[in-house]
Amino acid sequence: MPVRFLPNDAQHEAQSGETILQVAERAGIPIERVCGGRGTCGKCRVVVVEGELSPLTSSERSSLSPEQLSAGYRLACQARVTSSEDVLLRIPAESQVEPVRILSSGTSDVAPQDPWVTRHHLQVPPAGLADQTADLDAVLAVWRSRYSDPLRLDLSALRQLPAALREEDGRITLIKARDRVIDVRAGHATTPLMGIAFDIGTTTVVGFLMDLETGEELAVASELNPQTKHGDNVIARIEYAESQAGLESLQAEIVGALNRIIDATTKAEGCAREDVLAATVVGNTTMQHLLLGISPVHLARSPYVPVYTTAQCVAAKDLKLGCHPEACIWLLPNIAGWVGADTVAVLLATGIYLDAEPALAIDIGTNGEMAMGSRERLIACSTAAGPAFEGAHISCGMRASSGAIEQVWVDDEVHWRAIADAPARGVCGSGLVDAISELLRVGVIDNQGRMGNPEALAARGLRHLAHRLQGENRHRVFHLTGSDDSENGSLVSLTQRDVRELQLAKGAVRAGIEIMMKELGLHAEDIRKVYLAGAFGNYIQPSSALGIGLLPSFPNAQLLPVGNAAGSGARQALLSYRACEIASELPSRVEYLELSGRPDFQEEFVEAMLF
Amino acid sequence: MPVRFLPNDAQHEAQSGETILQVAERAGIPIERVCGGRGTCGKCRVVVVEGELSPLTSSERSSLSPEQLSAGYRLACQARVTSSEDVLLRIPAESQVEPVRILSSGTSDVAPQDPWVTRHHLQVPPAGLADQTADLDAVLAVWRSRYSDPLRLDLSALRQLPAALREEDGRITLIKARDRVIDVRAGHATTPLMGIAFDIGTTTVVGFLMDLETGEELAVASELNPQTKHGDNVIARIEYAESQAGLESLQAEIVGALNRIIDATTKAEGCAREDVLAATVVGNTTMQHLLLGISPVHLARSPYVPVYTTAQCVAAKDLKLGCHPEACIWLLPNIAGWVGADTVAVLLATGIYLDAEPALAIDIGTNGEMAMGSRERLIACSTAAGPAFEGAHISCGMRASSGAIEQVWVDDEVHWRAIADAPARGVCGSGLVDAISELLRVGVIDNQGRMGNPEALAARGLRHLAHRLQGENRHRVFHLTGSDDSENGSLVSLTQRDVRELQLAKGAVRAGIEIMMKELGLHAEDIRKVYLAGAFGNYIQPSSALGIGLLPSFPNAQLLPVGNAAGSGARQALLSYRACEIASELPSRVEYLELSGRPDFQEEFVEAMLF
Repeated sequence: MPVRFLPNDAQHEAQSGETILQVAERAGIPIERVCGGRGTCGKCRVVVVEGELSPLTSSERSSLSPEQLSAGYRLACQARVTSSEDVLLRIPAESQVEPVRILSSGTSDVAPQDPWVTRHHLQVPPAGLADQTADLDAVLAVWRSRYSDPLRLDLSALRQLPAALREEDGRITLIKARDRVIDVRAGHATTPLMGIAFDIGTTTVVGFLMDLETGEELAVASELNPQTKHGDNVIARIEYAESQAGLESLQAEIVGALNRIIDATTKAEGCAREDVLAATVVGNTTMQHLLLGISPVHLARSPYVPVYTTAQCVAAKDLKLGCHPEACIWLLPNIAGWVGADTVAVLLATGIYLDAEPALAIDIGTNGEMAMGSRERLIACSTAAGPAFEGAHISCGMRASSGAIEQVWVDDEVHWRAIADAPARGVCGSGLVDAISELLRVGVIDNQGRMGNPEALAARGLRHLAHRLQGENRHRVFHLTGSDDSENGSLVSLTQRDVRELQLAKGAVRAGIEIMMKELGLHAEDIRKVYLAGAFGNYIQPSSALGIGLLPSFPNAQLLPVGNAAGSGARQALLSYRACEIASELPSRVEYLELSGRPDFQEEFVEAMLF
Repeated sequence: MPVRFLPNDAQHEAQSGETILQVAERAGIPIERVCGGRGTCGKCRVVVVEGELSPLTSSERSSLSPEQLSAGYRLACQARVTSSEDVLLRIPAESQVEPVRILSSGTSDVAPQDPWVTRHHLQVPPAGLADQTADLDAVLAVWRSRYSDPLRLDLSALRQLPAALREEDGRITLIKARDRVIDVRAGHATTPLMGIAFDIGTTTVVGFLMDLETGEELAVASELNPQTKHGDNVIARIEYAESQAGLESLQAEIVGALNRIIDATTKAEGCAREDVLAATVVGNTTMQHLLLGISPVHLARSPYVPVYTTAQCVAAKDLKLGCHPEACIWLLPNIAGWVGADTVAVLLATGIYLDAEPALAIDIGTNGEMAMGSRERLIACSTAAGPAFEGAHISCGMRASSGAIEQVWVDDEVHWRAIADAPARGVCGSGLVDAISELLRVGVIDNQGRMGNPEALAARGLRHLAHRLQGENRHRVFHLTGSDDSENGSLVSLTQRDVRELQLAKGAVRAGIEIMMKELGLHAEDIRKVYLAGAFGNYIQPSSALGIGLLPSFPNAQLLPVGNAAGSGARQALLSYRACEIASELPSRVEYLELSGRPDFQEEFVEAMLF
């Protein structure tokens, strides 16, 4: 069932039972919230323009004013898709916060008035017997009379030139990317200038079709990274790329995904694939290597070096991308083997490199990449967080789809909410982090991560929780759902091993944060901003992240969920030459910290695994 | 039957009856001669090392000393291939004149010690956890420590880099063309560096396989330009290129020919096609456009402008050339629509741009291109000479193959010699120019080109020639062979129309020369050197060219037959970066003279048609 969002009016498919926040996140449309989608902050307001959503929840009744309620205001984290009707929503300015705020909190130079794909109308005078100027020279002469920047016409442009020049008496349109002409058209054409910003995640690939002139986002499409069939993590992909045939399949698979996204977004917008004249690509270093067909095998072997880190510019035809064959595909630079172009894009989008006071940017996907510092000094590192935060490698873990327990709170009993209010089938990342945070708070799990035994719990008066604990020691299990739950769902439990899995993941991230603070000589109270990107909000509630100690408490920091900041950075680079220049320079301004090379990492890691 | 020439030892197919000079010319091996192959100058000496040739002629007995004769010396213009045995010939230094002399008479900067395809052995230090330099950056660091010139590794090189770097502990070999790395190999490889210089003529395509390190010519191959099936002249090709499909066929055909030449030469040398790392291409402007797939249609329409004139550098894979896919294919620049890269190559090879005193360079192929001047000022023009000088468009005309009358001299009777001493089948270019030159001399043809009537000839005592004239006025015919000729060949005749055809051709060339002299304020006696390239020597005897007035008498000039000077220029550019730079600049130093735009051209042309 289709959901459309104003002001962009792009259409997105939603499943019945999904919250509007989930639909928007998946589509890469950032909506402000602070509570991580628990219905408590009241920030994620949307206005229903057409269609029906699920009934108002009590959270909405308490967060929204009577005037707002009668005007159709809802909270995106509470309102769910219910019918097969079209739903049209408006995201009010106050809720559109992230990309807009990020764009403007970055630098005022990073603005869509600084495009690098441009259209130029020229009037080229005809040649005569007394002046037999070659077509190319005639065009360059007119160009130089109007512009000071260089212009280059390669073979493909030279092939188009003679016919275009004569069809409308010397009136032509040049479309160029930086200094290279990528298309020559007869007459003063006004065909659209489109571009796509790709965010290639280990798990998910997203593409944002953008109007390069207005900066408007026209359509979004995403799909599972088809390389996941060779393994859900980066190391598995690298192993598969050991053989030339494996490397070629991985490349063909990701190119296939990008092509389907080009098809889907251009079809949604009703334009031609050839109208896509530029693309930017972000992704971790391995994803970038694989797209280019460059072997990433040495990223998995000490000393973990990439083949290249600098930004790369490739013609679409050289990657067999199905947009304009001469389109300029610009891959943002990487910082190091395990801190890739996605992190560069996060830095670009958050503007952390401009911050006067210390900040942390943390992007949790399948891996966790982090940067800390300010405009004076920035350091970055990567931790092998693993996919636990996405619900993987967990006994009852599942992706955030219908029936996944996504919220857990414990008072005198265990309460939970599953996506789409469906019968519980498993637990997704946010439910896992919530559950462990709550069980820690009430003492079912101790600060070493051990689940208590039922007798001890009963002795502390927690008899109502004690009966949910079963098994001994390493095989201990805590049932989130029980026979008294009326929904007839599966029995969803947390095992002692699940807790250990989460401890490893959060320990890795937390140790990274601690070492970065140590490296910079900072304490938690010095950090003024924490940019939460990636899984935060979608898979992890920031409050629970604090609860399990994934993040230090940061008493003086603003927590800023920034959604898909990597995607935002890719969009900025697509729209602005200045943003490309900044991105190109960022790797030289960021010090990479190789955690495995630090003698203190193991110590911090063990410490950080404690709750 | 195979003929091989030392010192290069390349093998060439010859037909029985061909002179060694013809075989050598076709193979692009220049052999000195001044008389145009009439057996009178004694310059075209070759030494038979193995095999048998036709018996000694009286010319050879008079030109060569008894010592030379006993040492196996022959004259290349006299000795013919007769048997099916292998023939191995040595070209002694004094006969190897042209390319050597031209190379050295050019500029001493243009020398093989200035290559633009080079091999570099690097030792790249390994990365460590404390220094996780990307492969690319590690290579660039070593490069910069040794060289000051820039280095660029594109996608293909980046793909090769990680494996090559680790196979032999950081020892790698880079092969680069200018600043671009085209191959990365493991270890300190010494695989050969080969290149091919292509000369694409409207009729014939020649390729010279060169060792880029020694400058040695390794093999030569040629074939008929397969585009001739669409017409034997440039205009016919341009018309065929009107449709996109026609343009694509013409491009595919010439690429096919170049690929067969790559195959033949590399096979002859026993090396791999991938060892060919660079190529230079010369040819007229239309041939250059067609190779690049750029429409030449506006070259045939006033004001005759090309799409581009500047030098172009293209990767082999982009033209589907079957050498190393990243090989740099460098097309020499053109001067104008009808003065192409072949003329630039002639200027480069002759060094006319360095001459202190006025010189003329004239290259007659299917068209006639000429340049005149000195280092102070150079002008160039093109004349539509048409293919008459190659025997085409002539009633009994034929290519220079067995049975073609190639020499004619008239005393009290008409004498002729056919190629391979075979029965006469027709007349080739040199025979035609000889015949008309001789008939002019004895008065069978008057200075307006009219064949006299038999009665008038008989009255002047030329009864023995009078009986060879038949028909009236426009239908008058002069029989070169007659019933009293013992060879039982065809009756080979010149018609009044043949004479007119030749007058048009020579008139166009001569008018061009006259207008260039006028433009430069020179007279025939000011010209000090005349570089005769292309058909001269092969299809036109310089002495007969003077006889028919194709050239002014140039009383103070040295006549320098320079063979395939366009091919020599292409070889120089292949071997020397400095030569490429000079070639790139030449078009800006040469003024193009559009003859059709000159009001005095028709007048000069009518004048120049007279003998």
